[in-house]
Amino acid sequence: MNQNQYCVILAGGTENRLWPVSRESKPKQFLDIRHTGHTFIARTYRRFAGIVPEENILIVTLEKYKDLVLNQIPELKEENLLLEPYSRHTAACIAYSTFTILKRNPDATIVVTPADHVIWDEHLFEDSIRNILSHAEKKPVLMTLGIHPDRPDTTYGYIQVMGGKMKDGSNDIVKVKTFTEKPDIALAEVFCNSGEFYWNSGIYAWKASVIIQEMKKYLPGIVAQFNGWETALGTEMQGKFLENAYSDSPNISIEYGVMEKTDKAWLYPGNFGWADIDNWCALYGNLPLKDNNENILAAQVSLTQENRRCLIVGAGKKKLYAIKGLEDYVVIDTDDVLLICPRDDRQIKDLTSSLGLSEYEKYR
Amino acid sequence: MNQNQYCVILAGGTENRLWPVSRESKPKQFLDIRHTGHTFIARTYRRFAGIVPEENILIVTLEKYKDLVLNQIPELKEENLLLEPYSRHTAACIAYSTFTILKRNPDATIVVTPADHVIWDEHLFEDSIRNILSHAEKKPVLMTLGIHPDRPDTTYGYIQVMGGKMKDGSNDIVKVKTFTEKPDIALAEVFCNSGEFYWNSGIYAWKASVIIQEMKKYLPGIVAQFNGWETALGTEMQGKFLENAYSDSPNISIEYGVMEKTDKAWLYPGNFGWADIDNWCALYGNLPLKDNNENILAAQVSLTQENRRCLIVGAGKKKLYAIKGLEDYVVIDTDDVLLICPRDDRQIKDLTSSLGLSEYEKYR
Repeated sequence: MNQNQYCVILAGGTENRLWPVSRESKPKQFLDIRHTGHTFIARTYRRFAGIVPEENILIVTLEKYKDLVLNQIPELKEENLLLEPYSRHTAACIAYSTFTILKRNPDATIVVTPADHVIWDEHLFEDSIRNILSHAEKKPVLMTLGIHPDRPDTTYGYIQVMGGKMKDGSNDIVKVKTFTEKPDIALAEVFCNSGEFYWNSGIYAWKASVIIQEMKKYLPGIVAQFNGWETALGTEMQGKFLENAYSDSPNISIEYGVMEKTDKAWLYPGNFGWADIDNWCALYGNLPLKDNNENILAAQVSLTQENRRCLIVGAGKKKLYAIKGLEDYVVIDTDDVLLICPRDDRQIKDLTSSLGLSEYEKYR
Repeated sequence: MNQNQYCVILAGGTENRLWPVSRESKPKQFLDIRHTGHTFIARTYRRFAGIVPEENILIVTLEKYKDLVLNQIPELKEENLLLEPYSRHTAACIAYSTFTILKRNPDATIVVTPADHVIWDEHLFEDSIRNILSHAEKKPVLMTLGIHPDRPDTTYGYIQVMGGKMKDGSNDIVKVKTFTEKPDIALAEVFCNSGEFYWNSGIYAWKASVIIQEMKKYLPGIVAQFNGWETALGTEMQGKFLENAYSDSPNISIEYGVMEKTDKAWLYPGNFGWADIDNWCALYGNLPLKDNNENILAAQVSLTQENRRCLIVGAGKKKLYAIKGLEDYVVIDTDDVLLICPRDDRQIKDLTSSLGLSEYEKYR
């Protein structure tokens, strides 16, 4: 394997939008929501261990998730577990991990990936990752991995491309025109029909030196927070250094901070089958349907009648789910929470927004 | 207290129409579904202990419920617990208990009562029971206790009265004209508007000798099964005797077998507030409403939005019920079953009829 290639797994997300199965204390990346036998983060780690040297895989997460990571990936060396003192979105995260890698290897090329996505064809996925790493290694570009949209999904961000080619004649990558926020359904349909838009997988590849150069340009405030990284990172000063760097870092994503502004962004279209199961509606949309009425029934014992387009997730192997007459609902049962809500992401969010109240603290 | 007055509590019902809270192994009479601190049967026993001598209160139930009865009513003498070998509806039950009482006291007057009804005003109830016992003691009548209907309830049986008076000038009881099955809603409205119909509480009072005389006339088959009761009941022969008597007894209710046919039925109108909470719809109808959208929320911790006319019964004190957008549903959660169904008795019955299948045996 190429010793200059690194992987950074971003695993600090705290959102519990698969509540009540996900919780603040155990967010989605640490769950095996699809019952595959592997948690999202463990599966992500194994996937990249086939591409870059294992000693070059770093995981960035919050201090409170340290034990979860080490339990789920016991082979991870502790020096490769980067613990953030606060949650500061992906830009700070990428600064921290990139400076850490730069100190070890100034010539590093890095693939950055979320910890919680679903990949259907792992061989095609490996090919795509090798491809974007290879492009990033050879040219001063910020590579993105786009997914060809097969439906007007409103829960994903989109990347629009210009269709320009590289000077070296690469015809498998295209120049990025814009990054977009999650669109409404009408806009998503326009995107899909145009042929110019891809889903943003959140997977990037770049040389460490190139992303730092772009961050200096577009996010000088964050880079300034990491001033002195050469001496502090990886030493006993690191804790205090990060505390300072993070406490004043802006809470900003790499998309908003750099990718939307840079002229170095290129896109490789992946066709490996991808999903970001970020909420119950996405799980519903991304699992094979189980019955003739388009219900997904993830419960071992059930007695159901006349339900349509429902997602029913049971709490345990022994509980019976006797459910009738629901249309377009999610029913998610756990030991200490039962969620029943229309299967519409906004409605679920409306309901669960009250979880911020102190009376529901223990259920978050 | 009048030593000739007896009470028979009919507690052999096996229906689990408050499933999944009620089960075949623990039917409704043994539950405290309204969280009053007393199970239905214990409350019924205490209520009648204020009216007839405690040693004159008998409970008839199935052998399999023996321990439940003795645990819930530890003061009950075992000789007053009549155990049926099979379930044979109320006519056989009344034959068994009446012959048992006749052997102890040929001059007995008996009030017969279900074990699982709700009584709102227990003082008025006591007055009514004393009244029907008194009438039954003085005259050869079969007294019924009717409830003035305040709504066209389709889950109750109705009794129509003629309005005739007793020869002795009693103006508080009226002659019964007919017993009716549970009506449909249109008929129930006619019943309510007519002023001639009362709900049948299932509570009766009669002299032991009079009900046996009427059973001989209208249910000679059952009485014949109990031939030899004078020597067998209360002795070591009783077990075998009952086995024989019950195995060939028809499965018939006292209403269908006697009350609909006799000309000795009279009705006393009770006004104590009564309900037979025989299914979730009845519980919904009979509990004070808890919120502005007519929902009943029997869950300690909840987070609900935009539900209307729902009955939500939680499994435990610590579980959170996050429920949105349901209209006219019941949600009944227990440790091993979750029931979600439109709040319509027939729909619940449709769903739970499958419980007869062997795969659901352990959940019945």
